[in-house]
Amino acid sequence: MGLSGGRVLTYWLTDDDPVARYPEPLLREFVEDYLAALGASADEARIVADGLVTASSWWHPGQGQGLEKLIRYARRIRNGGIVTRAEMARIHDSPASALIDAGKGFGYVSAHRAMAAATEKARGRGIAMVGVRNSNHFGVAGYHALHAARDGFIGLAMTNAGAEMAPWGSAMPVLGTNPWGLAVPRGGGHDPIVLDMALTQSGKGMIRWLARAGLPMPDNWALTAEGRRTTDPVAANDGPLLPVGDYKGYGLSLVTDVLCGVLTGSLFGRSVFQDDTHFDVGHVLIAIDPDCFMDRPTFNGRLARLIDEVKSAPPLDIRRPVMLPGEIEQRRAHTRFRDGIPVALTTVDQVAELGREVGLSFPDPVPDPLPNPD
Amino acid sequence: MGLSGGRVLTYWLTDDDPVARYPEPLLREFVEDYLAALGASADEARIVADGLVTASSWWHPGQGQGLEKLIRYARRIRNGGIVTRAEMARIHDSPASALIDAGKGFGYVSAHRAMAAATEKARGRGIAMVGVRNSNHFGVAGYHALHAARDGFIGLAMTNAGAEMAPWGSAMPVLGTNPWGLAVPRGGGHDPIVLDMALTQSGKGMIRWLARAGLPMPDNWALTAEGRRTTDPVAANDGPLLPVGDYKGYGLSLVTDVLCGVLTGSLFGRSVFQDDTHFDVGHVLIAIDPDCFMDRPTFNGRLARLIDEVKSAPPLDIRRPVMLPGEIEQRRAHTRFRDGIPVALTTVDQVAELGREVGLSFPDPVPDPLPNPD
Repeated sequence: MGLSGGRVLTYWLTDDDPVARYPEPLLREFVEDYLAALGASADEARIVADGLVTASSWWHPGQGQGLEKLIRYARRIRNGGIVTRAEMARIHDSPASALIDAGKGFGYVSAHRAMAAATEKARGRGIAMVGVRNSNHFGVAGYHALHAARDGFIGLAMTNAGAEMAPWGSAMPVLGTNPWGLAVPRGGGHDPIVLDMALTQSGKGMIRWLARAGLPMPDNWALTAEGRRTTDPVAANDGPLLPVGDYKGYGLSLVTDVLCGVLTGSLFGRSVFQDDTHFDVGHVLIAIDPDCFMDRPTFNGRLARLIDEVKSAPPLDIRRPVMLPGEIEQRRAHTRFRDGIPVALTTVDQVAELGREVGLSFPDPVPDPLPNPD
Repeated sequence: MGLSGGRVLTYWLTDDDPVARYPEPLLREFVEDYLAALGASADEARIVADGLVTASSWWHPGQGQGLEKLIRYARRIRNGGIVTRAEMARIHDSPASALIDAGKGFGYVSAHRAMAAATEKARGRGIAMVGVRNSNHFGVAGYHALHAARDGFIGLAMTNAGAEMAPWGSAMPVLGTNPWGLAVPRGGGHDPIVLDMALTQSGKGMIRWLARAGLPMPDNWALTAEGRRTTDPVAANDGPLLPVGDYKGYGLSLVTDVLCGVLTGSLFGRSVFQDDTHFDVGHVLIAIDPDCFMDRPTFNGRLARLIDEVKSAPPLDIRRPVMLPGEIEQRRAHTRFRDGIPVALTTVDQVAELGREVGLSFPDPVPDPLPNPD
């Protein structure tokens, strides 16, 4: 059994990538204040900060979706790629759907508002879908799905993205990783099920991570630029990412771009995400109201039975009990909200410098941080 | 590059599995007449026959979804597992959703009617979702999605199924292959995009096929019963199927069972599809009306541009141009509707015997059949 044996590889830290832990409220406050200083409204700052802090609490520092995203967002605010206080216009409105033009605003914000609109429309109707055009990087797909689940809805969030996946049988990237988030509310005070996934087997960030660490890569992650299978992450760096399930992930990614790109009026295919000052990304947010199908206690009880069946499946490794989608991240988040959120010091340096430019101080880390983030 | 190199393996015929070709109208008529003889209404017979003939036209004989399904359906009609002329009651009805109790009727029929209801509700509203409980094997997921696309809607069809997939990190099957069909209408007389896929990397039928042929299997298809990776299809026969994209496919399958099983009131998890006389399968059919987002000529034009980008990606193998999802099957179907639909002679023997029992003759094959089905 080689690396292609399907173990889930997780990000890890090397000795030259130290971190410090920061109290969650202070980190959140810093991000909000920084975005406000760049012109964001209080609502925009609150939504983006919540997204970045959530991502920082779910994953390992340096994975790319956490506080480090602030650096890119700042650049785009400054070059006009992201417009603060953007007017987000509802272009089409139907009983169970809408189309929003995000006006080049924050992707986190447009997707958040679109999911809020989707849940509002789905309530009592069963399902609703809101498309977003002319948007930006929307952050973590699972975060937007979670938004629906926290309000009691089953949520599905998807976005198109820059071309990194080739159509099956080619090595030329045409489609994006086009991530999906799905979330299911459980009731009873439990965290929702949250599935956050790209439609590629892995991402470029992870491949570069392995390259830096000098480690081999499973051979189903990416091809070389010439279209050969490889376990060498360096050789894969210029090649296309491979879809989940071979041609199946290609098909899912194509349909996702039809929904998020073609149908919303955004860019699609090879055009999307190419110009840092004009991303024109498209998203689709779908909410389902379980109350239109059965009463909530019955739904919660039946879901609990399915979850019991899943979680009582004997683990192959006794140290690794079966987890629900999102459970590892949510456990991590609970610990980190209590003990502090780890941020790579390289990120701290860059973000603190951004803060200084607008007269903000980066918060102090929690004393005596744990040596290794969980 | 080994077998795990990601080539799409297709079914093929061995010398001891000869076929004959039959005129499509006669095959269809035989299935309709046979089902009518067993008590099906004209509408039921028409829908099921169209599904089985479509599957026979898309795939190679013996793949399991074609005419050979009639044998199982006949058994279930006789043992009470499938009820002909079943009353299908609408239990819940909301503006953009409904829940149907299929009354143990044909899965093909309940799903067909549910998709018809979904498109009707989606028209002018944007999106609609119809759940089905107390149903049976619904046939080909992509067929039901295609139904929506032929009416101008983007369609998504999903079902739960018997437990063959283990939660990630276990080897005990709890979830099904839970197939999805997605279809997108293209306009201009083009066949829709049709993605038909299980959420597992492959299926038991394909693994048994390789076992019979004495061929190795990619190591990401299934585990042994003890949970080891294997390339031996015989060793994998009693083990769990592996999901697409590792933990991602597990998450998709879990959410699919939440929608199709938990939320509809059907069986779910390990219970579904266990009793041949009481399957109680659940389905979900979703339709999206593109007209609620942009006018149809604009949508068709934008989709054509995306398809151009996809299809103009240079193929890795010059003999295998990039295909859209479903394109291979649709090309095959056009040929077979003209030249005759291949049916394995072993299937012909069994189905002809069923026909004789009710006084029906199986049609004659087309003269001078081609030796190898395309």
